[in-house]
Amino acid sequence: MKNRVQDITPLPTEWIGPISITGNVMEEQVSVPMATYETPLWPSTGRGARVSRQAGGVRCTLVDERMTRSVVVRAKDGGAAFSAWQSISSRSDEIQAVIATTSRFAKLVDMNRQIVGNLLFIRFECETGDASGHNMVTGAADALLGWILQEYPELEYASISGNLCTDKKVSAVNGILGRGKYVIAEMEISRELCTKQLRTTPEKMAQLNLEKNLIGGTVAGSLRSANAHFANMLLAFFLATGQDAANIIEGSQGIVHAEARPEGLYFSCTLPNLIVGSVGSGKGNSVVEQNLVRLGCKEDRAPGENGRRLAVLCAATVLCGELSLLAAQTNPGELMRTHFKMERG
Amino acid sequence: MKNRVQDITPLPTEWIGPISITGNVMEEQVSVPMATYETPLWPSTGRGARVSRQAGGVRCTLVDERMTRSVVVRAKDGGAAFSAWQSISSRSDEIQAVIATTSRFAKLVDMNRQIVGNLLFIRFECETGDASGHNMVTGAADALLGWILQEYPELEYASISGNLCTDKKVSAVNGILGRGKYVIAEMEISRELCTKQLRTTPEKMAQLNLEKNLIGGTVAGSLRSANAHFANMLLAFFLATGQDAANIIEGSQGIVHAEARPEGLYFSCTLPNLIVGSVGSGKGNSVVEQNLVRLGCKEDRAPGENGRRLAVLCAATVLCGELSLLAAQTNPGELMRTHFKMERG
Amino acid sequence: MKNRVQDITPLPTEWIGPISITGNVMEEQVSVPMATYETPLWPSTGRGARVSRQAGGVRCTLVDERMTRSVVVRAKDGGAAFSAWQSISSRSDEIQAVIATTSRFAKLVDMNRQIVGNLLFIRFECETGDASGHNMVTGAADALLGWILQEYPELEYASISGNLCTDKKVSAVNGILGRGKYVIAEMEISRELCTKQLRTTPEKMAQLNLEKNLIGGTVAGSLRSANAHFANMLLAFFLATGQDAANIIEGSQGIVHAEARPEGLYFSCTLPNLIVGSVGSGKGNSVVEQNLVRLGCKEDRAPGENGRRLAVLCAATVLCGELSLLAAQTNPGELMRTHFKMERG
Amino acid sequence: MKNRVQDITPLPTEWIGPISITGNVMEEQVSVPMATYETPLWPSTGRGARVSRQAGGVRCTLVDERMTRSVVVRAKDGGAAFSAWQSISSRSDEIQAVIATTSRFAKLVDMNRQIVGNLLFIRFECETGDASGHNMVTGAADALLGWILQEYPELEYASISGNLCTDKKVSAVNGILGRGKYVIAEMEISRELCTKQLRTTPEKMAQLNLEKNLIGGTVAGSLRSANAHFANMLLAFFLATGQDAANIIEGSQGIVHAEARPEGLYFSCTLPNLIVGSVGSGKGNSVVEQNLVRLGCKEDRAPGENGRRLAVLCAATVLCGELSLLAAQTNPGELMRTHFKMERG
Repeated sequence: MKNRVQDITPLPTEWIGPISITGNVMEEQVSVPMATYETPLWPSTGRGARVSRQAGGVRCTLVDERMTRSVVVRAKDGGAAFSAWQSISSRSDEIQAVIATTSRFAKLVDMNRQIVGNLLFIRFECETGDASGHNMVTGAADALLGWILQEYPELEYASISGNLCTDKKVSAVNGILGRGKYVIAEMEISRELCTKQLRTTPEKMAQLNLEKNLIGGTVAGSLRSANAHFANMLLAFFLATGQDAANIIEGSQGIVHAEARPEGLYFSCTLPNLIVGSVGSGKGNSVVEQNLVRLGCKEDRAPGENGRRLAVLCAATVLCGELSLLAAQTNPGELMRTHFKMERG
Repeated sequence: MKNRVQDITPLPTEWIGPISITGNVMEEQVSVPMATYETPLWPSTGRGARVSRQAGGVRCTLVDERMTRSVVVRAKDGGAAFSAWQSISSRSDEIQAVIATTSRFAKLVDMNRQIVGNLLFIRFECETGDASGHNMVTGAADALLGWILQEYPELEYASISGNLCTDKKVSAVNGILGRGKYVIAEMEISRELCTKQLRTTPEKMAQLNLEKNLIGGTVAGSLRSANAHFANMLLAFFLATGQDAANIIEGSQGIVHAEARPEGLYFSCTLPNLIVGSVGSGKGNSVVEQNLVRLGCKEDRAPGENGRRLAVLCAATVLCGELSLLAAQTNPGELMRTHFKMERG
Repeated sequence: MKNRVQDITPLPTEWIGPISITGNVMEEQVSVPMATYETPLWPSTGRGARVSRQAGGVRCTLVDERMTRSVVVRAKDGGAAFSAWQSISSRSDEIQAVIATTSRFAKLVDMNRQIVGNLLFIRFECETGDASGHNMVTGAADALLGWILQEYPELEYASISGNLCTDKKVSAVNGILGRGKYVIAEMEISRELCTKQLRTTPEKMAQLNLEKNLIGGTVAGSLRSANAHFANMLLAFFLATGQDAANIIEGSQGIVHAEARPEGLYFSCTLPNLIVGSVGSGKGNSVVEQNLVRLGCKEDRAPGENGRRLAVLCAATVLCGELSLLAAQTNPGELMRTHFKMERG
Repeated sequence: MKNRVQDITPLPTEWIGPISITGNVMEEQVSVPMATYETPLWPSTGRGARVSRQAGGVRCTLVDERMTRSVVVRAKDGGAAFSAWQSISSRSDEIQAVIATTSRFAKLVDMNRQIVGNLLFIRFECETGDASGHNMVTGAADALLGWILQEYPELEYASISGNLCTDKKVSAVNGILGRGKYVIAEMEISRELCTKQLRTTPEKMAQLNLEKNLIGGTVAGSLRSANAHFANMLLAFFLATGQDAANIIEGSQGIVHAEARPEGLYFSCTLPNLIVGSVGSGKGNSVVEQNLVRLGCKEDRAPGENGRRLAVLCAATVLCGELSLLAAQTNPGELMRTHFKMERG
């Protein structure tokens, strides 16, 4: 069997919305594209978008942003590893300068270390403008590793990536120290809207979130994760906008918090690790570029603003899909009925 | 802004290989498709495939298969929840019969329970033929939940999915109890091949796996996960074959084990949660169907055999890509040089 | 400096209660001993015991019991490891017989396996009568390992303990597969009792449990753990009754579930991994023996009954202490005031 | 049954060693007390101590120290929570001043936040002199919470402890951000010593650590933990020195890293969360005080120095016990033979 380049896998894609969005990044109604084989996701997320327009919008708060790469070097022993770290961590100006030689966007935000025996792991955390920044921080880490091995000849190369980064893998470190955009999406939904649009009540939603996402997640041995299906919306949005979609792994580690209040439902999705960029990936893919343009993420803005807008659009999409699925699960039998009807219809 | 259905997102796809495969499912050389925006993945995985052909093949052992869905019901108290479980768990024949009404392929393999206070979580584990089985087990669980609520009127509906399943989320339960196919892919690589094809040594590879994947993963707060980038290969293979690609989350929770032996490198990738199917998803997508045909996964075989073949092909692909990236990371600077050359060139 | 045997470390100990207990193991009011340097634990747990007597008792449901030890052996490759497992797992009668040669109490309940590359981990799970069973299962595993290496000469010894057991370490496996006693302790507390004895309300308690134990635990990167301080009560009870107190690590991985109901507070502590025994440890320590006698755990009963009684007493103690501390934390400032007042006397 | 105060539980205690210790805190040979019901721990740890004296000592590197408490407050929404955090985090001088009113030893080292929906968790990290600092940081957090609620009346009290601290519970946060002393204990052991004293080889030890602690731990679903039994030594040392022994839970989350080198075995125990103090706990217990005096931890030194010495002594003890047990486990049958001989003999 001979290899042959096949141009494309055609991924079914539909625009959902518009979603009404407010918060510290944007105030606007925007439709979003979702590329997925799981087509019931479209009407389900669409229902959440409809609620957003009637409920005053999804409030999206961007809390933090950074991209990370960790290197690991080998010292003679733990004492030497610690001494090296003390010295390296005191030279942030020089480190900043080394990074500046690799990119005009990358800027050091913080460094963290773990020392295990004689192994020194250093996690470099950078701002990366509008890019998600995988390559930018890898380039920076590569240069920094060269600099470290030159300045500290007693250290040995172990790996350009020490898994403390951590990229496309389950971890606690990304949530605790940050990787990608940290976005909180939330909405207050009146009792009337709960009933009419979501066929549920605030009390049912809060109880489901407690019993399924929090307690069910706990017994499943989850890690920094309490939600129903963030991954579905993330994947569809990532693929339609040219992201490195394997980062749904970090992205999936988010938390739903819901409260039944006298006036209705408070519903929030916290996404501490949303790794998206409006430049850099999916290059040369004209559909992806068009999608980004249509989302308003290719505008002439200060570096980082298009990227943040994209993150907020993604978080709002996650909330719409999560809200709708959870509402369906509050009623026995509804999930199967609607899912199959949509999928087969 | 008005919604409009957009047909497709065109995902760059290339066939890699052939990979030489042996083991308890198949003995054959097969090329595999990878759909991805991260195009350096193609030559990198291709290098692993080349090694497989020269090293006698990737041995793939299928250890287990099952698909799961958990329901959660509410009892008066923990004592009542336990009594209900004792009764339900003794009625597996009736449960088997209820499942049989929902699908001719779904067969109960096992049940597990967790009780938290008055909440009873039951995890139903089924064989699902050639399908990955998401819908099949959800359908079964829906019927079982109806049956349970009828037979045990003292129980209340809490959720059709209690997150003990767990689908598309980080967990420990899937690895420990099983979800999807459990496949071990492994290869012995001579010292000569290590040097010539991978520019590394068995000792360097074993040390990198120890320091980066195992220790680095540990300090990152990983959970049942020790690898560099299983997720990349999984995503590309899943998208090209019409899988529910959000299941890369479970899939990414796998383990590399490598040993330096006198004769060369022993290298293995253990994937306990490979969720794939040769039927059922990506329906109507002719490219996906063609890919499955070309992979030999649409043959007229006993139920489950096409699905198992697909799982083995996927695991072998993961090994090829993992081997190649780790080899690159044993050498300072190589990752950046080759990655950028491939991406930009 | 020369070594010298020092007889004892005198650990302050007080009896708390009585706690009123109901459920599937016992119905009785029993006082319990707590050995601790953290003396405010006594009045705090005592308050919970007082509530138990007025609220109709702590209902304790024993759900499961087993003790475990895992061995690990090395095969030529993953295929050989899997073949060995298939054979071994089919010979449970012989395994049962090997175990019987090591103890008259140990009985095989289940076996589980994990295969990583060429490594085969087998987790043996046994009933162990009234003993916590550490030594009993280690003895059984030692004999089984000898038997395995004799019957399967293609396997090599790797370790008598493969950490899949897992003893005195954080894990998900113990909660999911079971280790020690699985006990649910729960209580319904009227609104009046909440106000008078606990200075709180059902709503405040449920909200605190949600926000602190479940959500706070999630962001902390907890694993199968959602409580405030199970460990304190476990430690004090374990030390006073001669347990292997390092098992508080598994024990601490438990879950509080609380609900505000019209009639009051539903409060539960689920302890899936309570490792206690009424025989076997702390031998020759007469105070410990007296404590066990006073607890009614040295009676002439069927094997296992004294051990189960001890587990239930321990779980009820945990609930009393957890309830009291959480109630204090619902009120700003109360924790510090009462803690320091108690500690400073 | 009437309650009665029982003075003490007498815990068997023996002094082990002396252990030879070097590193950045002390250079000295010191015997250590271990209070435990599991008496085989004494000779086993003693064997490790003997090796330390012949191998040039356990090198102990203190990397960090801090004690933590997290509060949680409720805002109107996530946007308000983030605004409050931005303001609070900019006022570290005032926060330092509030802390200073509660203790002359507590000093703010860092603050971390997690925001989940409308919930703001703030983790205060302080130096606490020679005390482990539980009460000191709780007192500081209590004052800070009062100050926050006064300065930011839009925030509501949720809990004085938000479990992001996190105390006596499994977590990833403590290892990543730090809690207690971070100590690396390590030793190089010649091949001759491996053979004569430990009946093993460097290669066997490195392989056992890989297969059991790292891979076995991974399949068990461990979290930031790769060791055999740190908990045993921690518990015995903590009880003999009046520590809050429930902190063995954090303490147990440490990592063994071992390497076979041409000249012998490199063996290290990394303990990122060693929570000990030479003042403050076990007050009025004269045996504990005598033990601390004998350990040289009640000297007239700068604040913190006695506490750091105690942490290093504890870490060295952990290494001695871990080394000895792992060595025993490299040989089939040895664990059982020696354990039972010691326990029964």
